[in-house]
Amino acid sequence: MINYFSTNFKLGILGGGQLGKMMLYETRKYDIQTNVLEPNPEAPCKIACDYFETGDLMDFDTVVNFGRKVDVLTFEIEGVNIEALKQLAKEGIKTYPSAETLEKIQNKGIQKNFYKKHQIPTADFEVFATKKELTTALENDKVNFPFVWKSTTGGYDGKGVSVIKNKEALNDLPDAECIAETLVPFKNELAVIVARSASGEVKTYPVVEMEFHPTANQVEYVICPARIEDSVATKARKLAVKVSEAFEHVGLLAVEMFQTENDEILVNEVAPRPHNSGHYSIEASYTNQFEQHIRAILDLPLGTTESKVGGIMVNLVGDAAHEGDVVYENIEKIMKMTGVTPHIYGKKITRPFRKMGHVTIVNKDLAEARKIAEEVKNSIKVISKK
Amino acid sequence: MINYFSTNFKLGILGGGQLGKMMLYETRKYDIQTNVLEPNPEAPCKIACDYFETGDLMDFDTVVNFGRKVDVLTFEIEGVNIEALKQLAKEGIKTYPSAETLEKIQNKGIQKNFYKKHQIPTADFEVFATKKELTTALENDKVNFPFVWKSTTGGYDGKGVSVIKNKEALNDLPDAECIAETLVPFKNELAVIVARSASGEVKTYPVVEMEFHPTANQVEYVICPARIEDSVATKARKLAVKVSEAFEHVGLLAVEMFQTENDEILVNEVAPRPHNSGHYSIEASYTNQFEQHIRAILDLPLGTTESKVGGIMVNLVGDAAHEGDVVYENIEKIMKMTGVTPHIYGKKITRPFRKMGHVTIVNKDLAEARKIAEEVKNSIKVISKK
Repeated sequence: MINYFSTNFKLGILGGGQLGKMMLYETRKYDIQTNVLEPNPEAPCKIACDYFETGDLMDFDTVVNFGRKVDVLTFEIEGVNIEALKQLAKEGIKTYPSAETLEKIQNKGIQKNFYKKHQIPTADFEVFATKKELTTALENDKVNFPFVWKSTTGGYDGKGVSVIKNKEALNDLPDAECIAETLVPFKNELAVIVARSASGEVKTYPVVEMEFHPTANQVEYVICPARIEDSVATKARKLAVKVSEAFEHVGLLAVEMFQTENDEILVNEVAPRPHNSGHYSIEASYTNQFEQHIRAILDLPLGTTESKVGGIMVNLVGDAAHEGDVVYENIEKIMKMTGVTPHIYGKKITRPFRKMGHVTIVNKDLAEARKIAEEVKNSIKVISKK
Repeated sequence: MINYFSTNFKLGILGGGQLGKMMLYETRKYDIQTNVLEPNPEAPCKIACDYFETGDLMDFDTVVNFGRKVDVLTFEIEGVNIEALKQLAKEGIKTYPSAETLEKIQNKGIQKNFYKKHQIPTADFEVFATKKELTTALENDKVNFPFVWKSTTGGYDGKGVSVIKNKEALNDLPDAECIAETLVPFKNELAVIVARSASGEVKTYPVVEMEFHPTANQVEYVICPARIEDSVATKARKLAVKVSEAFEHVGLLAVEMFQTENDEILVNEVAPRPHNSGHYSIEASYTNQFEQHIRAILDLPLGTTESKVGGIMVNLVGDAAHEGDVVYENIEKIMKMTGVTPHIYGKKITRPFRKMGHVTIVNKDLAEARKIAEEVKNSIKVISKK
């Protein structure tokens, strides 16, 4: 085993947002040196890493030159230059997840076709290279309203996904490569985080249940464990492992799934990194997702994935009516509540629906946690200074 | 309430060791800006704060100039210039704990006399200005062997404390102001961490039990909750609150105590800051001690102090036979064990008995945690590179 702790070993992280910031708590805990590449000089990772570089994650030369300074390279955002990762791998720099895995995930059309090829259950879909192709398919009844429209690239936090109910709604869509997906009626949206280490050790976290904001299409509550039957949970965890192994994925893979009316599990999409649906783990799990990601990519033994207590996560998103210097109204009120921990990502400017932080609510009694979570949600507001 | 989160508010921390480092995880979580003053340019806090300054904590001008740049000032080590804290308080900079509180604690002679004055039970003692005074008292039978010798200043981690059994042992003692304390036979060494906020809200953590290394006089296991009767635990927590209130302390106060053969509780000594006996809280408690310290000094509501699960802490101290570039032998072995989290402080050089890190073991079953803690202790070794 390589000695990572208080040595000159260097971990590189592409992306310096909140996921990277929370990863840095863990590299600090292990005293592992980190280099971060990120376009925004004021990003949450600007401190707590050993070396911060401002640069374009999609630029081949920038990524290759950055990667050459580290021993292992990972990313906290999918939008990175894949050719650069391939070049670095050729030069002997370990990149986890690999370029080959990321390539199958980065484009949602490729991702969906991958599920089809590997007999991984997923909603039916068609890929269209242009908006014109999509409208032609609609005219020829090859696609019918309502359907789920997804941009194949650049989707994030509810951007790039819409439910299209009629012809008029098509006007708002950009001319981009896209998927039209059958709208599947479902009971629950679930997620399972799989950790898979470089040498193939695999562990799954308990199934979490997600509730989305009705209009902003962002996760509102993540509830762990999901309030579903054990048999469904077992099926979901097994499917998540199958997905991870099919991708030959190393690191964390968040597998988002639908539980249909008939208790079928369909894979919706995956994220090859720590994920919003795993934030609860910082307070609730024996090993939080960020530590687990570090363990997995450095081929250290994986930690216990079970929970100490029930956990619920509430996203702190910018109020729809506010833009400007952020104020967390009533934060002292939620800090009085039992088992409540706010996480502030460090973005100075709030914007409508911008992800500014999250709050975790833990409790031995999950129903009690859910009640407190609602009080949290009704109390705190992310607004701007008057 | 002042708005601390993602604003220009600045918290100053005197001292940049491991306690400060763990405090910085929490300031990062809340996105509170921090300035750190520390003599060692390679200290654990050198990254993750917003501004790091190298300087002498005992130098009046250095501390005053540093303090003028912040809004609230705290410390993670007691050895700081008290006159500088007083000057800063005069200038309107909030310093928590206050200079007046620290003054009563920094010198162990003054601390012990404070207990006497406030009817806080503590072992009998005499203060001596010089070694000569002590030997004279021994010759005149005013002090008898065996007794506990304590330097009134500069004691830390077992340094500055000895049990003196006979005349020969006196030879090893320095000529310094000291205390001679009655050696009290005790069942347990206990500790209670009290959090007291600027506006007077008080909470105590559960009582922990400490086991010391037989020769190095450093804590070996900290066990939470202590395996003692509820009535004793209640008495210890009440006494800890009394101590905190007597000191008019703001922030965290770790109160170390003896449980005597008759279940009396005697205060041994206090530390006005996060403490080794509270490290278990990072994994085991609803609110860890570092977050709690930040909450207390910023007059935010205090968090829940109870535990999610049983917690045991093992210190990682340098092996007696090793000095040089550190290697954590068998760290991958302990990382395989259930609920085990290593914390590496980030000191590159190990020395005999140097505090290099700690390991937390959490489990719903405390007896199981204790078993795993022993496996941890028997597995990991802090050695130097060959």
